[in-house]
Amino acid sequence: MSLDGNSQRFDRHVFVCTNQRDPKDPRGCCGAKGSEALRLLFKEEIKKAGLKGKVRANAAGCLDYCAMGPTVVVYPEGTWYFIDTPDDVREIVQRHILKGEIVNRLRMPRQSPRPATVVPT
Amino acid sequence: MSLDGNSQRFDRHVFVCTNQRDPKDPRGCCGAKGSEALRLLFKEEIKKAGLKGKVRANAAGCLDYCAMGPTVVVYPEGTWYFIDTPDDVREIVQRHILKGEIVNRLRMPRQSPRPATVVPT
Repeated sequence: MSLDGNSQRFDRHVFVCTNQRDPKDPRGCCGAKGSEALRLLFKEEIKKAGLKGKVRANAAGCLDYCAMGPTVVVYPEGTWYFIDTPDDVREIVQRHILKGEIVNRLRMPRQSPRPATVVPT
Repeated sequence: MSLDGNSQRFDRHVFVCTNQRDPKDPRGCCGAKGSEALRLLFKEEIKKAGLKGKVRANAAGCLDYCAMGPTVVVYPEGTWYFIDTPDDVREIVQRHILKGEIVNRLRMPRQSPRPATVVPT
């Protein structure tokens, strides 16, 4: 639990919506579409990439895109993704987290391209 | 649920840890220290400030500071706070969210001062 005095706590912070709604709710929810398993895979892939402690995959409550998720947002860039499969998670870790490339095929529609540059510390 | 094509989805995204652990867990947890009520107060204060839809107060799973929370992180700056009271929430909204000032008295210890500048879009 060491704190880095000169930079953000994490190089990147990945939030995965794991919100669960009543199954009868017409909005649906990320939790019913396997988002917790996808979050755990993020954790595992981040660890495999040697980034444990530098990048964190967090559960989040409702991110407001219930019908389109599982929804993911990566900070500090603020890049939003809709994901579906384990391969989607691996591609975000391999490309966005490790190389700073936005994965456009998974990007939330109509969010304009932005470089995956980390905020200068 | 409109998407802004040229900027981040939210001007600021506040995550409040609402994780609940077993009451016997020696680490404690933010959830047992009233963090969900503080999150709801963030929502209310953000709405009162006219920022609904521009700033979002989200629940988050464990942010890894169980003993020191309730823990809050504000993106895109990546500013971490430990909060305790409704006045702490109001001060973060009035100063950090509305004026871009870091609230140093609530800041996670040993996190160096950083300007609350939003990432250029």
